[in-house]
Amino acid sequence: MMTKMWGSESFMEFGIFGSAQAKRGGPSDDSAVGFREFVDRNISAEKLGYKSSFVVEHHFTGFGQISATLNLLTWIAARTNTLRLGTAVLVLPWHNPVLLAEQIATLDLLSGGRIDIGIGKGYRLNEFDGFAIPIEESDERFQECLDVMLKAWTSDQAWSHDGKYWKFKDVVVEPPTHQRPHPKLWMGAGSDRSVKQVAALGYNMLLGQFDSVEQIAQAIDLYKREVESHGRVYDPKNVAVARSLYILDSEEEYEKALQARMAGRRRTQELTKRPGFEDTREAALLGTMYGSVDIIRQNIQELMDIGAEYVLLNSPNGLTSLETFALKIMPEFSSNLTPASP
Amino acid sequence: MMTKMWGSESFMEFGIFGSAQAKRGGPSDDSAVGFREFVDRNISAEKLGYKSSFVVEHHFTGFGQISATLNLLTWIAARTNTLRLGTAVLVLPWHNPVLLAEQIATLDLLSGGRIDIGIGKGYRLNEFDGFAIPIEESDERFQECLDVMLKAWTSDQAWSHDGKYWKFKDVVVEPPTHQRPHPKLWMGAGSDRSVKQVAALGYNMLLGQFDSVEQIAQAIDLYKREVESHGRVYDPKNVAVARSLYILDSEEEYEKALQARMAGRRRTQELTKRPGFEDTREAALLGTMYGSVDIIRQNIQELMDIGAEYVLLNSPNGLTSLETFALKIMPEFSSNLTPASP
Repeated sequence: MMTKMWGSESFMEFGIFGSAQAKRGGPSDDSAVGFREFVDRNISAEKLGYKSSFVVEHHFTGFGQISATLNLLTWIAARTNTLRLGTAVLVLPWHNPVLLAEQIATLDLLSGGRIDIGIGKGYRLNEFDGFAIPIEESDERFQECLDVMLKAWTSDQAWSHDGKYWKFKDVVVEPPTHQRPHPKLWMGAGSDRSVKQVAALGYNMLLGQFDSVEQIAQAIDLYKREVESHGRVYDPKNVAVARSLYILDSEEEYEKALQARMAGRRRTQELTKRPGFEDTREAALLGTMYGSVDIIRQNIQELMDIGAEYVLLNSPNGLTSLETFALKIMPEFSSNLTPASP
Repeated sequence: MMTKMWGSESFMEFGIFGSAQAKRGGPSDDSAVGFREFVDRNISAEKLGYKSSFVVEHHFTGFGQISATLNLLTWIAARTNTLRLGTAVLVLPWHNPVLLAEQIATLDLLSGGRIDIGIGKGYRLNEFDGFAIPIEESDERFQECLDVMLKAWTSDQAWSHDGKYWKFKDVVVEPPTHQRPHPKLWMGAGSDRSVKQVAALGYNMLLGQFDSVEQIAQAIDLYKREVESHGRVYDPKNVAVARSLYILDSEEEYEKALQARMAGRRRTQELTKRPGFEDTREAALLGTMYGSVDIIRQNIQELMDIGAEYVLLNSPNGLTSLETFALKIMPEFSSNLTPASP
């Protein structure tokens, strides 16, 4: 296992990830409030020194997760200057690949190349049911959508596609992306096999939302070896490790935060219907950094020690923990900055 | 025919319409320049007193018209405060109705209800060919997409749809729109039959991009009578008349502007392949207001006299004509404002 010491040349970068809440059913203002709060949080995060914001895509949740991810990111992009706009992840099986390629290219151009495109196959059964797409088609649909998007971004000459799910004839897709040949692609990886696939494809890797530090260490190590075995240079900033962050000071707060996380996991499981779901405290704690500033500092040091240099923080209490983290912890692990107050 | 006199209680409102240019094939910066210029034009238009910006949706044009219309509008919305964001028009047959409803609702929420949704069936053959959708299906696809979008916006309870082109099962679409029950819908109308349809549906009407003043007068008159025959109150602001505006001062400039319009019409016709295209000066002049400030003032007075109270200006020379118009003509026809310099 690779280890890095604090004080060495390496440094860490931090982003945020998550979703706004825009529930329906109440007066419209309730939904707009969730969006506004999320936009403000992103603007503040940029000022605090966070590098990026990765936003989910989900549909039909009943609790208002973001559905039109690229539109929300476009708004945030127009209100920020340096923040990278990430998707975590766009679920390709739902999308017309040409329309999606156009939307991504448009935001990439408008933002001066600030997009990072996390892509996935989908996993929630309620979404497959809702879109009336058999979950068995997810691999094939993912692959076909990705193939077409890559053609759309990179072809200046007319091309056609006669696939199983999509057909296009004699088209050149506009506009082009700003980043060439296309924005960086990011994929999650939940097994050795998928870590190897992501490395083989040359994509960046999203890790760890529900993984232990040991699992992340193994995945980073494998990914690094695989990238190098393909003759490429490994860049630790190409792996983003997702953690849930809650800075708190009492047993009572801790218990409340953990119970909320357990409730959240159950709520998601009702939509996902994934077999083998473990509704335990231990399972819920995977992926969390809940504790005092000192505890969180140790958590980050652990991540640094296993070679994680890019961490995405999801904060259940919004800007509160993100601000404390940025002011009290981030500077020790970052190269440069004394963050400004938001 | 209804006539209105300047100085009466009625007043006019003005918006802009058109497209950014983001051509592909050159260095990426060429494309971004077109986007940036368009965004700046919209910000300036708001300051000059324009009420709205209506943006086209087109694909595979080869000259870089806007494809991801809602994304560009989202960026513009985030950079403006009062400007209404219009589509002219979203071509429903290209879109998954649930994804489109989510995108529209997201922008509507973020912008505080500033969206106007112009919708259409598509008319360019190269787009139908490119998407591999038979042009014969455009009516059916339009109708099905619209039906599903309306359900998506207005249903707080789970619904299903088992249509010819789309299936959805047991879904509630998030987020809700800000405007209730949904953003205003606008449709173009090119015949008495379609004017009657738009009135019957209770939608607003887009008119005149290539029509004479007489044709517009007839359409407004018919629409008003039809709206009232359905027991609703006619509001002249629910009809938007599109005109191409070029303020110029010499025969030479006039000829150049006209030749450019003729070239533009030919370029579009190559994509559209519509039978009966007339490549004449007379046909190209329909829909234009090209001339001195005095001429344009007369053109606007003519539109006011036939009951047009909402005019959308497309300016081939960008902000130049829009600024002159706002400073020298708009105040005489508007209720309130002395526009600020941009």
